[in-house]
Amino acid sequence: MTIDAVDFFYASMPEVTLDADGSQDALLVRVTAGDYVGWGECEASPLVSIAAFVTPRSHGVCQPVSASVLGQRLETPDDIRAISSLVARNSMDLLQAPHTLSGIEMALWDLLGKARQEPVWSLLGYAESLPKTPYASMLFGDTPQETLDRARAARGRGFRAVKFGWGPFGHGTLQDDVDLVMAAREGVGDDGRLLVDAGQIWEGNVAEAAKRLPALIDARVEWLEEPFAGDSYEEYAALAALSGPVGLAGGEASHNARMAENLIRFGDVRFIQIDSGRIGGLGPSKAIADFADARGVTYVNHTFTSHLALSASLQPFAGLAGSSLCEFPSDPRAVATAITSTPLELDTDGFVSAPDAPGLGISVDLEALTPYLRSVSIAVDGVTVYDDATR
Amino acid sequence: MTIDAVDFFYASMPEVTLDADGSQDALLVRVTAGDYVGWGECEASPLVSIAAFVTPRSHGVCQPVSASVLGQRLETPDDIRAISSLVARNSMDLLQAPHTLSGIEMALWDLLGKARQEPVWSLLGYAESLPKTPYASMLFGDTPQETLDRARAARGRGFRAVKFGWGPFGHGTLQDDVDLVMAAREGVGDDGRLLVDAGQIWEGNVAEAAKRLPALIDARVEWLEEPFAGDSYEEYAALAALSGPVGLAGGEASHNARMAENLIRFGDVRFIQIDSGRIGGLGPSKAIADFADARGVTYVNHTFTSHLALSASLQPFAGLAGSSLCEFPSDPRAVATAITSTPLELDTDGFVSAPDAPGLGISVDLEALTPYLRSVSIAVDGVTVYDDATR
Repeated sequence: MTIDAVDFFYASMPEVTLDADGSQDALLVRVTAGDYVGWGECEASPLVSIAAFVTPRSHGVCQPVSASVLGQRLETPDDIRAISSLVARNSMDLLQAPHTLSGIEMALWDLLGKARQEPVWSLLGYAESLPKTPYASMLFGDTPQETLDRARAARGRGFRAVKFGWGPFGHGTLQDDVDLVMAAREGVGDDGRLLVDAGQIWEGNVAEAAKRLPALIDARVEWLEEPFAGDSYEEYAALAALSGPVGLAGGEASHNARMAENLIRFGDVRFIQIDSGRIGGLGPSKAIADFADARGVTYVNHTFTSHLALSASLQPFAGLAGSSLCEFPSDPRAVATAITSTPLELDTDGFVSAPDAPGLGISVDLEALTPYLRSVSIAVDGVTVYDDATR
Repeated sequence: MTIDAVDFFYASMPEVTLDADGSQDALLVRVTAGDYVGWGECEASPLVSIAAFVTPRSHGVCQPVSASVLGQRLETPDDIRAISSLVARNSMDLLQAPHTLSGIEMALWDLLGKARQEPVWSLLGYAESLPKTPYASMLFGDTPQETLDRARAARGRGFRAVKFGWGPFGHGTLQDDVDLVMAAREGVGDDGRLLVDAGQIWEGNVAEAAKRLPALIDARVEWLEEPFAGDSYEEYAALAALSGPVGLAGGEASHNARMAENLIRFGDVRFIQIDSGRIGGLGPSKAIADFADARGVTYVNHTFTSHLALSASLQPFAGLAGSSLCEFPSDPRAVATAITSTPLELDTDGFVSAPDAPGLGISVDLEALTPYLRSVSIAVDGVTVYDDATR
């Protein structure tokens, strides 16, 4: 097979708010090769990622992503890795390229799995897809009471673990943050697992982050996520030295495998969070899963969008027994749920697994998605370089 | 003043080749505030950087760059820093954002300097603009003889230092590389300064890079640039431990200040190369200049495009006596030279300095640029979100 076509589907809510809720839009990618199609999803900013596929070249190592994808051979996992290497070289100076590639690369694995009638996790080298404990990922409520209510509701839906982040956290006083965290603990109950995401709110300020540690320890929070930007290694390591039982977590913004490795190596995180829709897809995600596992660091997916992205993000650590937590978008917007009619469900014990089905095991429901689709057209010098009316 | 308008000018050669020559296109940015205009330049992939300015938002921290720029106050350098912080926060998940911001941020400094009748280097805190030794930055010739000829020609034009990179280097045998380096040394003469840029050709392979060290040492090469990707810190440090008198150089791809700091901290480079058109503009560049200087690391600009970009890239280290080399695009394509009618010239001693003139001290020549301008239009759901016919 050779890669015949890459088509993008930009979907969004009619109104996109300023909430830190990544499920408000999506960029799906459909790859066609021979008799098969595969689907993937790029994280964030659909228009910009489309532009990175079609942009005129700037020079030899600033080519559009399309130049390294269309027409390439696709028969084996190594062919996918070769395409990723090509993009890394030919689009070296095109910053957005890894985000565009991410959805394409997922679709390549999905397509290859369908062609071989094999799950992607098997193509990636795992013998089985192990059950993971999903944590309900949600925003802090505006008040402690609202946070408590959300936590209880998540437990009521069968979640054993809940992560709160963003919202008012870090924007008010220290006591405000303490109250939010304590309400979250009360809501999840004594036996619930609790995680906190700071959303980089303290920038590089280790002391400000450290002030929250006693409350986080008191509330038996398992991890503090993204106290700082994901490349603030020195600050991560300094905070990690103080955080005792609370592990640091981060890495979601990594747009290549090296960035995530460096956060482990130099930042002393105990949890490495990979967004397969940003890091370049499933190949680099699997490389990080192996790297982390060898160092006793827990791999966790970063997923706040659809169940297509969720299934994709589970594949790279599907068979890793030591990495058993899974971010589960607990309350996505309608556009994210419309993407598939076959969402991943929690089993009777409250676990979730990467599907035992060819490819990613997810059916994309284009009809249900239609009301949310947005059309894009781009012209350079009056010549259309992209118009999704033609797909 | 408040920022009233940001206009983009995408210019390119009629034909853009696969040469690793970044002067083949350019994205100029004109910012208007009150009675003043300022100019800047974004490095690479103009269409994608334009898209990052106008894209619909994905969520609260994935907003278009425009959301954090238009309408903002612009009275002081701190206002510029505040805008950069806003973009970093509001466009956190938009990977291309720093490249878009870079040209805008330069233009803000240029504008503020013109309003205050003060050079940007003065606004950045320097008392004077020191002369720098420009090195002619060029591609290796396809043969040793061609390389030798190019080196001699550069010396003939008054350059005391020459950097060769890319082209065939690293693609052939070890002996091919040795021959190229030796020819370069012969061409620059005994008293010429010689630098080599590997263009990441060895990826993460330290041993492969190390094989070239004896020849580089023999040829008295001052630095080996980008043996690996700029975040391969461990590999940089391993090679640095072997490279003796040859310092490692890197950092051009840094899209925030932390990345460059990390390459110094963990990668043991002796030269940190900053592209102000990628890192977010002059504020973060100046922060790195200070960081490097305090650690005995030499700051060098990375510039392969126009003299607007060159003047901008000189400002952040204009007053640093310890950082006296300057990358000087020695043979840019016609589109890059058309940008300004006031290029920076080597003085009679062969030095170059950031202009002692308001702002960046560069006049943009829109009329000369007109033949190279490319028009862009972008529509979402049939509504035009960008069309440069309207500027």
